[in-house]
Amino acid sequence: MATEVAVAQFSDRLAEAVGRKRSQLVVGLDPRLELIPVEVRGDAHLDREQAADAVERYCRGIVDAVAPSVVAVKPQLAFFEVLGADGFRAFEHVCAYARAAGLLVIADAKRGDIGSTARAYASAYFPLADAITVNPYLGRDSLDPFLQAARRDGAGVFCIVKTSNAGSADVQDAVLLDGEPLWHHVARLVCEWAEEAVGESGLSNVGAVVGATYPRAVGEARRLMPQSVLLLPGVGAQGATAADVARAFTSGPASALVSASRSVIYAYRAAGGDWRTSAGVEAARLRGEVWAAAGW
Amino acid sequence: MATEVAVAQFSDRLAEAVGRKRSQLVVGLDPRLELIPVEVRGDAHLDREQAADAVERYCRGIVDAVAPSVVAVKPQLAFFEVLGADGFRAFEHVCAYARAAGLLVIADAKRGDIGSTARAYASAYFPLADAITVNPYLGRDSLDPFLQAARRDGAGVFCIVKTSNAGSADVQDAVLLDGEPLWHHVARLVCEWAEEAVGESGLSNVGAVVGATYPRAVGEARRLMPQSVLLLPGVGAQGATAADVARAFTSGPASALVSASRSVIYAYRAAGGDWRTSAGVEAARLRGEVWAAAGW
Repeated sequence: MATEVAVAQFSDRLAEAVGRKRSQLVVGLDPRLELIPVEVRGDAHLDREQAADAVERYCRGIVDAVAPSVVAVKPQLAFFEVLGADGFRAFEHVCAYARAAGLLVIADAKRGDIGSTARAYASAYFPLADAITVNPYLGRDSLDPFLQAARRDGAGVFCIVKTSNAGSADVQDAVLLDGEPLWHHVARLVCEWAEEAVGESGLSNVGAVVGATYPRAVGEARRLMPQSVLLLPGVGAQGATAADVARAFTSGPASALVSASRSVIYAYRAAGGDWRTSAGVEAARLRGEVWAAAGW
Repeated sequence: MATEVAVAQFSDRLAEAVGRKRSQLVVGLDPRLELIPVEVRGDAHLDREQAADAVERYCRGIVDAVAPSVVAVKPQLAFFEVLGADGFRAFEHVCAYARAAGLLVIADAKRGDIGSTARAYASAYFPLADAITVNPYLGRDSLDPFLQAARRDGAGVFCIVKTSNAGSADVQDAVLLDGEPLWHHVARLVCEWAEEAVGESGLSNVGAVVGATYPRAVGEARRLMPQSVLLLPGVGAQGATAADVARAFTSGPASALVSASRSVIYAYRAAGGDWRTSAGVEAARLRGEVWAAAGW
């Protein structure tokens, strides 16, 4: 809701957390039942409610384990939606648990729809999360409720611009009349939107998702969207390294976030040992690596 | 799941329903609590569970009212998600109710994400719905689980191509090197994907969403995606008419579907009288108008 008092801006809260924790790490919560250890899910067949409970327990354990090393968690809606209403409730609980642990929550929803539908999505997710990922294909008016929340309520919005998957070329790299790929055009739109919601840190509440798997694109994105926080997935399981994303940080220590999911939350599968300990150790290691690469 | 026996294709089931009902109408279920009549929602403050119950009752009543005139309903996920886990359960119940009433269900989700996330979305929605809307911005690999379900399991997929909102120009109309708008490029991709999942009716399980508010685009979309069912929102509240979409039907009587939401489900607000009766009357009127305009 719009108020007369100053609202805390997502970008400022993020900058504060980055400075305090010396971390630009976000851990993605992609809970897949078949990857959760037997000690959490049991070995009996689970119905949906039990499965959602197991997912929630796992996510809470991961939040506890990584909290010292990360500034935010990024729950991926799909892995909760697949468990239906029970999964959705687990998502709500995990968001609340992470915020109580002092972490920012970025709902990875990639929503985007027209008019009143977009308003419904904004009201669905902003009470639960501090920020949300959105899809730009439907254009500015489809994102207006999110951008309005960014301007007025200090909410965070990350617009997908250039994604980490191989198929991102199909549409995002389509070459426009000026010889540039479509995603540059989208980045320029995001840059405009970002200018309307800049906090005291100089960073905007309107950020962008750019795949760390395309290091050259990361540098170009930095240039095209100087005030946006870049959310960089693809480090770890998808093959990108901290060095690949170093140039994202030239707008300040909080101007980019590295997001890792599977390599952290399922670290026990490679490293062995307790799942919480393994996740905590991998998050701490990656935090240090990213901080060093960022050079602040 | 892939089986040895022939599976019923979405496109064939649709063609059968269109022929039998002489209807190409889809009613969108966009249940907004504040628009639901007091007799359904009561006048007390509702908690989320009660709100979700009211939404479910309303949607079931609409399903009953419009069933004789429509081939499918299109529940819009956002309006259920805004009510959290209870809303999600209402969505599941409404889908089951509509299918039991002999209607096809198109989940208006506009999902699109990478790899395992897309697989999770496909498994979340295909047990509930016959078809789902998806967003192409992340490229082919992000849609693979949906396209695979279309090829192997006969599921329906509607890829958004050119949307009905004014802002659709921002990204979809970006001009490519060959002088054509981006959405033509996306339409060509959809055409390729559609060729892999053509049913006995000659129509593909892979369709496209094209806004009826852009009549010229409807004709171009027909030419670019000859085997795809075109799902055409924008008739009614958004201002397009049945005549605007006539050229969508040149690939056969089931080659396009007109989707109307607010003008049908909230018809009682303009027409007065019982909400079910008003919705049923408006659906019947629109069915006849579209059928006549389609000219089959």
